[in-house]
Amino acid sequence: MKALLVDTRSEYPVMRMDEASRPDPGENELLVKIKATALNRADLMQKEGKYPPPKGASPILGLEMAGVVENTGRGVSLYKKGDHVFGLLSGGGYAEYCTIHEKLAMPLPDGLSFEEAAAIPEVYLTAYQAIIWLGELKTGETILIHAGASGVGTAAIQLAKAMRNARVITTAGSEEKCALTATLGADLCMNYKEEDYAASLEETFGKNSVDVIIDFIGSPYWEKNINVLAMDGRLIYLSVLGGSAVENMSLIPILRKRLTIKGSTLRNRSDSYKFDLTNDFRKHAFSLIESGALKPVIDSTFNWEQCEEAHQKMADNLNAGKIILTGM
Amino acid sequence: MKALLVDTRSEYPVMRMDEASRPDPGENELLVKIKATALNRADLMQKEGKYPPPKGASPILGLEMAGVVENTGRGVSLYKKGDHVFGLLSGGGYAEYCTIHEKLAMPLPDGLSFEEAAAIPEVYLTAYQAIIWLGELKTGETILIHAGASGVGTAAIQLAKAMRNARVITTAGSEEKCALTATLGADLCMNYKEEDYAASLEETFGKNSVDVIIDFIGSPYWEKNINVLAMDGRLIYLSVLGGSAVENMSLIPILRKRLTIKGSTLRNRSDSYKFDLTNDFRKHAFSLIESGALKPVIDSTFNWEQCEEAHQKMADNLNAGKIILTGM
Repeated sequence: MKALLVDTRSEYPVMRMDEASRPDPGENELLVKIKATALNRADLMQKEGKYPPPKGASPILGLEMAGVVENTGRGVSLYKKGDHVFGLLSGGGYAEYCTIHEKLAMPLPDGLSFEEAAAIPEVYLTAYQAIIWLGELKTGETILIHAGASGVGTAAIQLAKAMRNARVITTAGSEEKCALTATLGADLCMNYKEEDYAASLEETFGKNSVDVIIDFIGSPYWEKNINVLAMDGRLIYLSVLGGSAVENMSLIPILRKRLTIKGSTLRNRSDSYKFDLTNDFRKHAFSLIESGALKPVIDSTFNWEQCEEAHQKMADNLNAGKIILTGM
Repeated sequence: MKALLVDTRSEYPVMRMDEASRPDPGENELLVKIKATALNRADLMQKEGKYPPPKGASPILGLEMAGVVENTGRGVSLYKKGDHVFGLLSGGGYAEYCTIHEKLAMPLPDGLSFEEAAAIPEVYLTAYQAIIWLGELKTGETILIHAGASGVGTAAIQLAKAMRNARVITTAGSEEKCALTATLGADLCMNYKEEDYAASLEETFGKNSVDVIIDFIGSPYWEKNINVLAMDGRLIYLSVLGGSAVENMSLIPILRKRLTIKGSTLRNRSDSYKFDLTNDFRKHAFSLIESGALKPVIDSTFNWEQCEEAHQKMADNLNAGKIILTGM
């Protein structure tokens, strides 16, 4: 089969179309003819050799896909050849075929294209894990979602609104991105390049007003995050793109405000965790996809032969929502 | 009634026996003739004016007691005059009488003296909250309990063993205190004055081997705590007696090891939280008190007229287990 592989022969690693052996579906696995996959920041890191795939995973990039079941391995009971499915991968999405455990696969909801479905797994499952499982957001609480126009950010805004009727506050780096988060339901969006988000937030909603924060930025926001959190607030780290070193951290507010700070990545979780998460997401959020309350935000779609261009767009932070590869 | 009040007229605040008005039991409250109370570090802080009582609480020191129901307020249905009870207070234990909500009171288990019962509420409810509710310790996991010979430390060791059959590691500041934690069931105790606990712990149990840490110390242990935590480890702060400022904190291990860091104090929790905690503790741990698996460690008992001496002993860190006041 054809697959996009990392070519490290030139000065910078680039994606190159090449031949790879088609994977065989193991026990309880589906072989899927991929119709669309979506980009993730982890792809860029893995391409640069900074984010090796977990043990047992395909070395090929690509953490999610939508496609058609081509074949099934031993013991498969949930799907059959011809079914339209989508789901989370540990790798292998940048290819014509992939294998996926049947418990990680989800059936394509009615009315959703392969491109839309491919845009769902990473961002919605990550946002679901962060908001519902780790952040334990309760109905009517206030959530601050940093990088609100990112893939996970857009999914998080929709989930927090649709599932918890939360007050949603976001940050983003341009007026256009702020406008996007508003159309998704954000009650307040702050352009972090133009204003001190903590000051603006306190001015609008008061001190100690945020129950849950979803952060991808890290150290630059540490102190402000801690300051705006309410009693019993929860700060969830999904990444630390802006830096990881915090100087002069104080434990006092953690104790006084009874804060919880959690870090989590989805990729290195156990299979059984991902099965449970996929199952829980299907149970509670799937009807919201079908009703349109959760609608993946797609920035742009590239033919997979233009993958380098797509990667560059993400590296330059020019996307608002997911970037899709198709044409396999 | 007689009560110990804080006398701030001399150079240092001291406890002085004085007259105070006997409290009236409100709705759902019991009036209790106190037979014994126990010291807490919060008492020393409150005496120095550093830890004001929460709104609505008695300004008198004393966060727990055991005694006899003298009278009941409107709506009380769980206890009657003459019942032997013990429980958590927001204040008021250093006196002849106190009031307590009936849902915070627990019946004295068979065979327990008032002195033993007075030693239970703060340390066992705090340890129960930290280990079972916040730390979510699972059966067979490894827990590191700092200040293992302190009141909460001794309760935590017993609870972790009796309820979760955990591997229990403790730190303490003397050989005698280490020996005490061993008799309570600790599998390894390290004298933090003599050895680098993280190095000793790793040597014995390997790197990243601790699932839950209960810490009262704060910044001096931050980095070691983070280092010894296992994947999905949980670090629970109940106090920061050793300092609160952490220089150069890194968010990387929080993300990579998917850590959870929580701060909590019991005193400023809502009544309904304390009701639930008391109820949950009764349901799951009471039989272990009655069977002797949980047995309060009493360092010493003072007549309440010798309160200053008792305070000094705690201030000098000379106690292993609880210090009791009696003779009201």
